[in-house]
This record gives sequence, C-alpha cells and structure tokens, in this order.
Amino acid sequence: MASSSSLTLSQAILSRSVPRHGSASSSQLSPSSLTFSGLKSNPNITTSRRRTPPSAAAVRSAAIRASAATETIEKTETALVDKSVNTIRFLAIDAVEKANSGHPGLPMGCAPMGHILYDEVMRYNPKNPYWFNRDRFVLSAGHGCMLQYALLHLAGYDAVKEEDLKSFRQWGSKTPGHPENFETPGVEVTTGPLGQGIANAVGLALAEKHLAARFNKPDAEIVDHYTYVILGDGCQMEGISQEACSLAGHWGLGKLIAFYDDNHISIDGDTEIAFTEDVGARFEALGWHVIWVKNGNTGYDEIRAAIKEAKAVTDKPTMIKVTTTIGFGSPNKANSYSVHGSALGAKEVEATRSNLGWPYEPFHVPEDVKSHWSRHVPEGAALEAGWNTKFAEYEKKYPEEAAELKSIITGELPAGWEKALPTYTPESPADATRNLSQQNLNALAKVLPGFLGGSADLASSNMTLLKMFGDFQKNTPEERNLRFGVREHGMGAICNGIALHSQGLIPYCATFFVFTDYMRGAMRISALSEAGVIYVMTHDSIGLGEDGPTHQPIEHLASFRAMPNILMFRPADGNETAGAYKVAVLKRKTPSILALSRQKLPQLAGSSIEGAAKGGYILSDNSSGNKPDVILIGTGSELEIAVKAADELRKEGKAVRVVSFVCWELFEEQSADYKESVLPSSVTARVSIEAGSTFGWEKYVGSKGKAIGIDRWGASAPAGKIYQEYGITAEAVVAAAKQVS
Amino acid sequence: MASSSSLTLSQAILSRSVPRHGSASSSQLSPSSLTFSGLKSNPNITTSRRRTPPSAAAVRSAAIRASAATETIEKTETALVDKSVNTIRFLAIDAVEKANSGHPGLPMGCAPMGHILYDEVMRYNPKNPYWFNRDRFVLSAGHGCMLQYALLHLAGYDAVKEEDLKSFRQWGSKTPGHPENFETPGVEVTTGPLGQGIANAVGLALAEKHLAARFNKPDAEIVDHYTYVILGDGCQMEGISQEACSLAGHWGLGKLIAFYDDNHISIDGDTEIAFTEDVGARFEALGWHVIWVKNGNTGYDEIRAAIKEAKAVTDKPTMIKVTTTIGFGSPNKANSYSVHGSALGAKEVEATRSNLGWPYEPFHVPEDVKSHWSRHVPEGAALEAGWNTKFAEYEKKYPEEAAELKSIITGELPAGWEKALPTYTPESPADATRNLSQQNLNALAKVLPGFLGGSADLASSNMTLLKMFGDFQKNTPEERNLRFGVREHGMGAICNGIALHSQGLIPYCATFFVFTDYMRGAMRISALSEAGVIYVMTHDSIGLGEDGPTHQPIEHLASFRAMPNILMFRPADGNETAGAYKVAVLKRKTPSILALSRQKLPQLAGSSIEGAAKGGYILSDNSSGNKPDVILIGTGSELEIAVKAADELRKEGKAVRVVSFVCWELFEEQSADYKESVLPSSVTARVSIEAGSTFGWEKYVGSKGKAIGIDRWGASAPAGKIYQEYGITAEAVVAAAKQVS
Repeated sequence: MASSSSLTLSQAILSRSVPRHGSASSSQLSPSSLTFSGLKSNPNITTSRRRTPPSAAAVRSAAIRASAATETIEKTETALVDKSVNTIRFLAIDAVEKANSGHPGLPMGCAPMGHILYDEVMRYNPKNPYWFNRDRFVLSAGHGCMLQYALLHLAGYDAVKEEDLKSFRQWGSKTPGHPENFETPGVEVTTGPLGQGIANAVGLALAEKHLAARFNKPDAEIVDHYTYVILGDGCQMEGISQEACSLAGHWGLGKLIAFYDDNHISIDGDTEIAFTEDVGARFEALGWHVIWVKNGNTGYDEIRAAIKEAKAVTDKPTMIKVTTTIGFGSPNKANSYSVHGSALGAKEVEATRSNLGWPYEPFHVPEDVKSHWSRHVPEGAALEAGWNTKFAEYEKKYPEEAAELKSIITGELPAGWEKALPTYTPESPADATRNLSQQNLNALAKVLPGFLGGSADLASSNMTLLKMFGDFQKNTPEERNLRFGVREHGMGAICNGIALHSQGLIPYCATFFVFTDYMRGAMRISALSEAGVIYVMTHDSIGLGEDGPTHQPIEHLASFRAMPNILMFRPADGNETAGAYKVAVLKRKTPSILALSRQKLPQLAGSSIEGAAKGGYILSDNSSGNKPDVILIGTGSELEIAVKAADELRKEGKAVRVVSFVCWELFEEQSADYKESVLPSSVTARVSIEAGSTFGWEKYVGSKGKAIGIDRWGASAPAGKIYQEYGITAEAVVAAAKQVS
Repeated sequence: MASSSSLTLSQAILSRSVPRHGSASSSQLSPSSLTFSGLKSNPNITTSRRRTPPSAAAVRSAAIRASAATETIEKTETALVDKSVNTIRFLAIDAVEKANSGHPGLPMGCAPMGHILYDEVMRYNPKNPYWFNRDRFVLSAGHGCMLQYALLHLAGYDAVKEEDLKSFRQWGSKTPGHPENFETPGVEVTTGPLGQGIANAVGLALAEKHLAARFNKPDAEIVDHYTYVILGDGCQMEGISQEACSLAGHWGLGKLIAFYDDNHISIDGDTEIAFTEDVGARFEALGWHVIWVKNGNTGYDEIRAAIKEAKAVTDKPTMIKVTTTIGFGSPNKANSYSVHGSALGAKEVEATRSNLGWPYEPFHVPEDVKSHWSRHVPEGAALEAGWNTKFAEYEKKYPEEAAELKSIITGELPAGWEKALPTYTPESPADATRNLSQQNLNALAKVLPGFLGGSADLASSNMTLLKMFGDFQKNTPEERNLRFGVREHGMGAICNGIALHSQGLIPYCATFFVFTDYMRGAMRISALSEAGVIYVMTHDSIGLGEDGPTHQPIEHLASFRAMPNILMFRPADGNETAGAYKVAVLKRKTPSILALSRQKLPQLAGSSIEGAAKGGYILSDNSSGNKPDVILIGTGSELEIAVKAADELRKEGKAVRVVSFVCWELFEEQSADYKESVLPSSVTARVSIEAGSTFGWEKYVGSKGKAIGIDRWGASAPAGKIYQEYGITAEAVVAAAKQVS
C-alpha cells in the first residue's frame, strides 16, 4: 500500500478486504459503513443487547430437551437461546457432514458461549467487519472454525452466507478448514496451529490498551473494545500460550477475556494421559483472574455472570474455564475423541437430531432464530455510526491526535515519511548493521505513529530500543518499547496480533537470527496471514564469534528464502539497511526479516536505498557491454569481501562486476530485462559468497559457477578466526573467480 | 555405528567420545574404566561423600570475607567450601577475562550450588564420563558454561585441564562458548538456546525412570541415578520449559531435581520489566515439589537441606528456587545485567579479588582445594567398579535382561535387526506412507530394545502407536508409548535427552510435518549435538487436503535440506519407508526426518530399501548407454506422478529415466561415479516434481531443466483438487519434459 494520503479512512479499510479466492470484497461492505458520519447512534443498543437473563434453574431445565419444532417466537427467552445454540451446533454438524471433513466436536460444545458472545456481549458491525472499535474475537482452537462461521452467518456477515457454509473446506470457498483472516472478513487472525490464537489475542489486547492510553481523553473514550478468545486444551499445552499469557498477566491486559474450553478430550483421548496440571492455578500464578464455569453446556447464566465478573476486573486478564462436553448432543460420540475431527456420519447426525429435538433440514436456520439475530445488522451499523459521530467530535477537539489515530486506523503513512531514513556515504563510519538498524528504527519511530516494538530480552544486543519512548508496561501503556522477555514464539504471535489490529500499526520484534527457530511457527503465520511484522534479527552468522554453533545461523537464510510471502533481507551497510526498512514499512501485507551483523562493516561505495529495494543490483563494475569476465555476488557482511576480491582481480586486469543480493524475493519481482542487466545469462562465470548454507545458490551461480558458503556447523572462536578457517575470505573468492572464468 | 556384537560394553561407550576439534578421545578414559569388573566397591564412599555440614550461622559468617591466602588444610570445613566456591568463581572470571568474551555472572552466583552438587552430591567417574549409571547434570542456562568447566576441571575430568580453561572460547578448544556434548566429555547435552537444557533433563530423567522400571529387580537396583539441572530466568520464560516441565510433573519424575537460579536479572535488566509471574506457584500447579532457598550465595546448608528434601520426594520432580546474586563478589557489577555477558574488565577483576580476599594468580587452584577435590578420581573409579561388580552379578542372575540393557548402554544393535524391516512388492496394497511407517515402527520395536517414542497428541494421525506396548505413564514407566500432549518443542528436546542418555536408546517423535516449525529449535540441536532422534512427520504436503494452508508444508523440505547433519527423507512407498528407517536406526549421530503422506500411495515397481539408502536411485529406465532423453525426478507422493508421466512419454517413444530422490543428503554422500550413473552430466533435460517449494532444485535439474513444485501457500480443499489446480500432475510433467528435451 502506498503512502498516498488521498484515501479516506473507510476506503483504506476497504482495501484490506482482498480475499484471494472467490468474489468477496468491497461488495460486502454497505455504503453506510464508508463514512464516519451518516447514521446516528441508537441509544437503545446497550440495554437491548444485555437482556435480563432467565434464572439458572430455567436454563438447566430447558437443557437437552431444548427447542421443539415450531418456529414461533412465543417461546420463552431461554428456549430461544437453546434454539439458537442448537442452530449453531447443527450448522457445524451439517457443514462438516457435507464436506465429510472437519471438526464438529468443539462447535457442539462451545455453541453456548459462542451464542452469548456474538448475540449478547460483543459489539461489532456485520456489514463492516473492519470497523475500528469492534470487539475482537479469536478462535484459538481454530479447528473448530465452523463455530465461528455459524456465528458470522447468524450475525449477518456477508462473507458467510448459506452457500459458503455449504462449501465448507472446498476449493475457492470463504470457509476454509481453519479460520483465515485473508479469506474471510470477520475473522481477525489466522489460527489452527495451536496456541497462536491466544497469543494473537494478547497482541490485539495490547494494541487496544496502547491506543486507548495514547488517544483516549477524559471526555472521549475513542478506543474501547474487548478481545475475546476461545482456546482449548491443545492451546493450553503449547508453550507459546504460556509465553503470551505470562506477558498478558504482566501487562495487566484487563480487557482480554479468554474462554478455556475445558472438555478433557484431545486427539489422543482423555487429557488425563498427558495433561494433568492445574491450569487454573497456573493462570493465577501468571497474574490472571480465573473463573470456573462448571456447566458450559447449558449454564447460560453462569457464562453470563462470568463475563460480567471478568469485565469488572480491569487490571488483570481473565481466564474463564468453561467445562463443556465435546460433541454435546451426540448420543454416541459426545465426550470422546471420535467427535473431535471427523464428520459424525449420517446415522449419528440423525441420532443427534433426534436427541436434541432438531427436525430441520441441513443448514436450516429457524425463522425465530433468524429473526432474533437479524437485529445485529442495524445495531451494528448504529454502533459504528455512533462511534463515527464520536470520532468526528474528537477530531474537532483534538485534531492532531485524530490525525495520528486515523493514520493508525487506515495505514496511510504520513507524506514524506521515507525522508526520515538515514543515508550514508563511504566516508560514514564503519558500523555493525545492528547499530545502523537502530538508527533506522529510531528515525522511523519519529515519523510513523503506529511504529512500536521490542526484543526478546536482547534489546541491548539487538539494538532495538526507541530512545524517545519508555517501556510499554501495565501502568505506562502509552509507551512503545515492548519488553517481551525470553519468549520468542509468543513475541512473534503477539506482533501478528498487533499488526492485524490496525493497518497502521507496524510492529517490529527482535532476537538473535538463530532463534527464529524458536518462533518460526509465528513467522510463518505472519507470512500466511499477511501481517507486515518486521523481524529484526541480529548476530546473523559465524560473525558473532565466540558464542559458537548454538548461536550461529547457517541454514536460516535459505530456510526463509524458501518460505512464501516473506522478505529475507541481508543488508551489507547503512544504505542497504535503510533500503530494507523502506520496503519493510511499505509492504504491509508481507513480513520482512532483516538479518543484521554483530560485527562492524564498512559503508560501501555504490550501495543505495534504491538498489536494495530492487533486491539485487550492481554495486560496482569495470566491464563494458554487459559482459564482465566474472560476476561476484555477495550479501550482508560478505559483500565487503566480494568488493575486496574484485579489487584484487581488477588489479590483474579482469573486468569484474560486484552484485549485492540483499533480498532474493525482491530481485525475483523485477522485470526480466532488469534481471538480465544485472546477471546477464551469457556470463556463466559467477561466484557467490555468503556466510551461510550454499543451499539454493545454484539458482544464481549456475552449474558453472561457484557458491562459497558454510555447509557445516559454526564454531566457538573469535569471528575473524572462524572466517579464516572456514575460507570465507577474499582470497577464496579470487581463487574461485579464476577457476570459473 | 555398525551392529557388530564384538565390541565390549566399554569399548562401545568409548566410541562415543569423538570430539571434532582437539586431540581428546580414548586417551582420557583410564584403562580401569574399560571393564565392568576390576576395582572393588569402596564401602566408605557413601559416608565420605556426605559430610556433616557446618551450621548455617557458621556458613553465613564465613561469607564474603571467605578464604584467606594460606593453602593449609587446617581451615574449617566451611572455609574450605568457601575457598572451593571462590575457586570456581575465579576460574570463571579469569577464563572470561582472558577470552574477553563470555558470561561470568552466572558462575559467580551459582558457584555454591555447583560446588555442593559436584563435590558433595553427585555420583560420577571423572575418568569415564560415559559411565552408564552416573548422575546427569545439565546446565540449562548454558551461557554460564564456565561454571561447568570449572567444576569438571576440579573434579578431574581430562577434557578440562588448565590449558583448556585458558583457551576458553578459542578455536579448537574443548571449552566452547556454550556447553557442547560433542566437544567436551563430561557435558551431557548441548545447551545455550534457553529452555532446551531443562527439557533435555526431562528426557534424561524419563530414560532413567523407564530403564529402572524395566531392568531393576528387587535384589538389584542396576539403574539408579539422578538428573540435576541448573536453569535461569531465561529458561523459565521460554515456552519449551513449560511444556517439558508440565510433562515432568505429569510423569512424576521424582529423580529430576532442578535448581532455578533466581537472580532477578536478565539481559535487559531486572526481571521486573517482563517476568513477574509466581514461578513457584506455577510449578506447584504443574505437579512439582517446590523449595525456596533464600540465600543461594552463602547458604550452603540451605542448599544441602533442599537437596535432601528433594530426594525424599520420590513421586514428583523438585524445583529448588535458589535466590542468588548474579556476579556475586563483584563490588560494582554484582546484581546488574552488566555482569551477565561480558568480561568484568581488569579493574573490576581486581576489585573482586580484593573483595573476596583472593590473592592468587589467574587460573590458580589453591592446593587445599585441589587436594580436597582430588578424591573424586579414585572415588569415581570405585563407584563405577562397584556398579560393574553389581552388573556382573545381575548378568549372572538375569542374563536376558542384562543383554538387553547392555545393548541399550552400548548402542550395539542386535544382530540381524534389519531383517525385521517389512518389504513390499508392486502387488502389495496401496497405502499411505504414514501407515507403512507404523508397520516399520512396530517391526523395529520388536527387535530394538531401546526403541520408544510417541506423538504430540496425534498418535492416531501420525500412526505412531506401538501395539505391543502400553503408555509410559507415572505408574507404568516400563512401557514405550510416550504421550507428549500438544507440546512439539518440548517433545523434540525430551527426545534429545533420551537419545543422549544411552547410545542404544532410539527415540522417535511425531507430529504433522508443518509443525516442525514449532520444534525446530530442538531439531537443530538434535543435529548439532548428534542425537539420533527419528522424526516421524506425517501430512507432508497439500496432499493432506482440507485442513488448508496452516497445515500444509511448503518450504519445510527445503528448510531441512539446508540444515547440516540431519537427514530429510521423503519416501514414496513401503520399501522406501523401510529404507529410510534402516538408515535412521543406523545413523545414531545424525537425526532423521521422515516426511510421510496422509494419502494412499501405490507400491512402485523398482523401489527398494537399498535404493532408498543411497538417497537417490534409478527407479525405472528405458534408455541405454546412460543417455536417456529426459530424466524425471520425483520424491514421496509425487514419484507416482513421475512414473505415470514416464509411461506416457515412453508410449511416445522417449527414453525416460525415473529417479527417486528420497534423501538428498545421502545422495550427496555417494561416490562421484554413482552420482554420474544416476544423473549423467550430459543429460540436461531434467524435470523434478515435488509438492513443495522448488527452492534448491536447480542443483539437480540445472539451468536447462524444470522444477515443478509449489512456491505459494496451499489451500483448503480435497487433495486431488489442489493437485489439479496447482499443476502437480503427470500432464504437467509430460509437458515440461517435452519442453526441456
């Protein structure tokens, strides 16, 4: 997305909705959602959304026997809730059955909490899934996505119409096998890999707390939403959830409310076989408020009361442990792993219909249920309109803050932001690219209102502190330095949540490059879910020296070059580092990784922001007619070595081109002509040098060229010594160049 | 290692000691360690090792002022302990100072617990670091490795002599920047990446509990050791430690005793900024026994009492939270992050010497300290000899069990084990390789006494259950099916611990291939630390279908092919799966990954165990003179497609070779002649097909060939549909073959 300031707020929001399959997009946003004003706030919303709940006894007696076959609305309120809950259950059952693939168990067990959340508690506008101040919902147990699709369908989201439910898990549908934000407007983040969602939710709640602290005024609470999550036993077992939840407790994210679907079943059977810790006690130790709803199957009032209590606790996140029965309603498969991840089968579907008193055709939504849910479209529009009115007032009173917040909401970058990027000449002092990175981070934080981030306990090594800001902490949430502790996986997923909260939030996070291994699960989801996180990865090779092979990346560059939709940068000096940041900031739907050196590097003649932005470019050349005798290709800290080797070879009369290959993916995006101009196909004498695996370099050096690299583990010794011993030297490049040319 | 049964137990153990730098190896094992018998057990060992400790008050008053300059042994016992503790501190200080690199803070704070462990508590034989029944020690906070090197030095391990301390972190030394089991005999596992060590320790303790349950008899406790760990705040924050410790509590690993170095400092400063959870309460929630030693700096008796208490609790692992001062003794840097990871500097070293009353030259071990520690060499030899005697008696009484245990200790595989591997003909039924894998796993478990493993809650999808065994659980530890829960990272690291416990323990573990992203940190350490774990990774491509892109590996094959010392297998059918297992079992110092299909695949004509073991081989060919018109290369589920395309092309008169490329790394190990015989350099018409990233395939298809693959995300749909839409088809191969030939 360009930094054009001509987009309106809502147009910019619209541009986010670009599903890759199917025909969805702008058509699903009603025109009324496109402006800040227009509709007036409905004063009845609050009361109408929070009905007096029926007594718990009534709820319980209504359970199981539940809704009869009639579709009148003379039923008691609780009976209607039962009916709605069963509608959710059967939409899930029917969709999984039709696809003959999917996970019916969770939706059947979690339908009650799902109903209460989407029908009674959450504030959202179905016709504009991107309305800024909406409550966020994350289904961390993503396999249960039919729960969310059923809820989005009932609530009136255009992305999930009946035909979408019927094409669950089919090619080109908007209802894929796990929730994918890039396919289904209304889905906030991409889940399925367990534990990611709860960590994303921590990021969403962090974003809310941060923005609220920065922009709310005593007379204008312009940022004010909750983040709700449903997570299961699987999410709880994953280390990433422990990391993120420890931080959520530390940060006191009071508006994060998580529902733990405590159903005692995982794929391998009863959780007794592998998961017997006291989860509630653990969360109390993490600084969470913990509530146990013992009857999650039919205890609507218990669920309601728990949410009320959770909202009253404003200084801690809340974990509501909701004990449910997986596959609730299925007479033969409930409470067993067999209902977790397979269709029930026609016979059991019938048995369940009979057991729950459900006489309808597959995919049918009873009229009274439909009618009951139909209010969410006008109510949602009114909620957004009310907020728009509020924002218009805010804008009048606080024009400066409003402009900043608008930029964060829309992702429109301030005009001329890129002028803040530092530039360097060969006379600028030699420096480690991690330090040059810090100059960029601090320059960008001054001009980008949504720029924030931090490190996994390596701020002083990764050089990631923003000097003009303090730490984001429980009592200073307006600050922008995030302190993640030694929690790489949680850090990545939290940043995904931040990035997907608002288009103009640009989170960066940092650790040693080798520890991308700890957070790769989250980084892949950045790439897949189009979260433009910036990964600041220092200590990028054997050049880190004495810490040895556990800390020295070898295969990491190759491993990310192979991953779709992520940019792997390895800048060589200051200008290239600035170029990498320029692209990283612009590419809001593609995350970027910057591999940065611990050791000092010279500022190279010929390096440029523009060159780096092309991925590969000619740094220096003494050939003519696009026919050098040999092409030397380097990246990062080894580009200097290629330059030295070129100097040697030129002294001997060779025509040598030095190409910097800072980002393969960007080079591949260039025109065929450009690529030919840099790497002419007629010149097969090519040598690459990079202090990492040679895996993949055949693509550029060809079968007649030579790739100098490291296809073994590193070693513990001073960096210079390792470079010598491993033959990552100008002499080696000169020798290889002579061999191939 | 071959399965030769001619090795004696100790010779086989010796073969493990092959440091890659330096000249260590068999010379460091005394001849007396090479036999089971010889030395007699010393009845005084137990009492002599557990002296009556001095009073806590005496300990405290002796603190700081500590040891004076004399080297007489007339000092009080506590003063000698102080002196030993300060020796450890200064060896660390001096080594870091000389290297001008390293982490003095932890050794200075943890020296007391280190001293008590290695001098008073642990049972080991310095001259045979591989003695089977030794207590295991893991420094999970691996950056503090000078603590361990100092202790190994004092205890008399040959790997760490004075010159080794002086070459700390230098090229070729046995004292690298983090503990590396493959460099330093006496170091059990490789740590540094935080959280790995504690998870390894869970694996070591699991192995002990399992072997004890299988082999101990009422009259012969032949397996009986503790596993001790020191971990820090960083380890505690990492999700991997939560995963592993949750399992340790679940499994009731009573002989696992962990020391949590609670020093309140991490690299970014006070842990207050990111880590405020109640760790003790969390561990109680995980089912651990928790003890708090409030004075870890000088409270020797408190530490001793805690260990005694921990040993008395036999049904739970114990976490001893030891509050220490990082950099204890440094007057200006103690209790600050500045002492964590840098040399103190000459001035502060002097100040610390003065503060702790340490008049000695760098690297000096006072004579009384040396003399005090010198007993560990004879005592250790006696301990091992005593155990050898015990084993000899055991062998007489229980020859069958003894033979099994011996095989587990030495890693000698039973003769003819490989005959158990199943073989297949083209007439054998088509099947998913995950199912064929299960046939192999079950066949191997019957013949390999040390074969055990399990899945991260996907046993019924990964097909990893051993049918003849039950579950390893708290009360059934003799069983061999491990239930890891949804804890991939912990699982991998636990398996590293199991593999490094005994050479004949062969652990396998399983999840969906895409979730290697969650455990890559542990897998890299398998590869680096030469732990021959077998990774059973099913659902290996878009072929898994409806679960969609979050579950479909794309870049994973490439990402592991780029990693040193790990074998990435993608077998195509039953014979190739058996071939992969054959190599995986034999390669005890190289982990293997098997990428296996969810979907059914035919048994291919021409496939073989022998072919698979070569990594790449000719599956079928109708050319002559090693000059096919075109070579089609496939792996795994796409080999079938290559075969179909070849059939088509041959019908049209082409000479077509089909090559199966099941493991690139093994193919690269073959002779140049063999490689030329499979992929003749004169034949440039080559097409590869693999349902994954094409990254790296240029190496084999060359610039004139074509790689068919998937360089984008997968999709949620039935597998066949995705294959069609993505062009992973025989038609595409035929078209490409025509284009290139």
